[in-house]
Amino acid sequence: MIILGIDPGYGTLGFGVVEKKGSSCRAIAYGAITTPKLVRFPARLKFIGDEIAKLIDRFKPDAIAVEELFFQNNPKTAIMVAEARGVVLFVAESTGIALYEYTPLQIKQAITGYGRAVKIQIQEMVKRMLNLDKIPKPDDAADALAVALTHAQTNVTIGNFGIK
Amino acid sequence: MIILGIDPGYGTLGFGVVEKKGSSCRAIAYGAITTPKLVRFPARLKFIGDEIAKLIDRFKPDAIAVEELFFQNNPKTAIMVAEARGVVLFVAESTGIALYEYTPLQIKQAITGYGRAVKIQIQEMVKRMLNLDKIPKPDDAADALAVALTHAQTNVTIGNFGIK
Repeated sequence: MIILGIDPGYGTLGFGVVEKKGSSCRAIAYGAITTPKLVRFPARLKFIGDEIAKLIDRFKPDAIAVEELFFQNNPKTAIMVAEARGVVLFVAESTGIALYEYTPLQIKQAITGYGRAVKIQIQEMVKRMLNLDKIPKPDDAADALAVALTHAQTNVTIGNFGIK
Repeated sequence: MIILGIDPGYGTLGFGVVEKKGSSCRAIAYGAITTPKLVRFPARLKFIGDEIAKLIDRFKPDAIAVEELFFQNNPKTAIMVAEARGVVLFVAESTGIALYEYTPLQIKQAITGYGRAVKIQIQEMVKRMLNLDKIPKPDDAADALAVALTHAQTNVTIGNFGIK
């Protein structure tokens, strides 16, 4: 199963593509979509939406996992991140691919088992879980891989309840 | 010139289509796009984006004017409205039609000449400016017509500076 994880943003949006085989995961690709400050905001949103569509088209994920918004101190920034996140959800939903949302708390718990984990702990676990040589950069890409890994871990599994 | 005005929202999004001829304006259409609470949020966003695309396709506006977000007391609601607004901007920008954004203050000033006008004053002016029998309903549609009328009024005009 291929999972596309997205850490939404308007200046920098992180993405991570993870393949889950059995209980192990590997990173297929990760990186960031960046948009320049001087460009009109709607044009930045269009660029983000178009690039997300290209990523989906290229990696053909079976599931898309998007981080939910963390309320920031700056409401103006939060609004702009939310606008970009709306575009991501719209483009993802339009493909018909299964779409999931995870809160920062769910991600921390899934990756480190600890809801108050700090960024570096999550990044270190992402590195280990994906057998990478070093922590993925930029931070937004590492965050996006964490979202994808959260989905890989929290997937529904049908247990064997001893039925013979 | 045909102007599509949009008052963003996720439960109810208002739209208003206005035709400007010379200095007078008439309403071509107005109404609201509504999405039900029980539907998954990304599906609501997809519905909104698809309906906006249909409105643009149907009325072929020369300009699209979208209200900027007013910071609400409830950050969760503000985030969801922003996500819907992001979808509107993305769909509008993707058409290549000229796209404008106006703040609530700019709209109040353009419509009533008074930055602290209350909702009913704006609605009354919308009714008068468009020669309507009564105030358009729902409120979101009246707000959207106000956004379109704001653009109709604040349009760049090249004056005659007495050049002979």
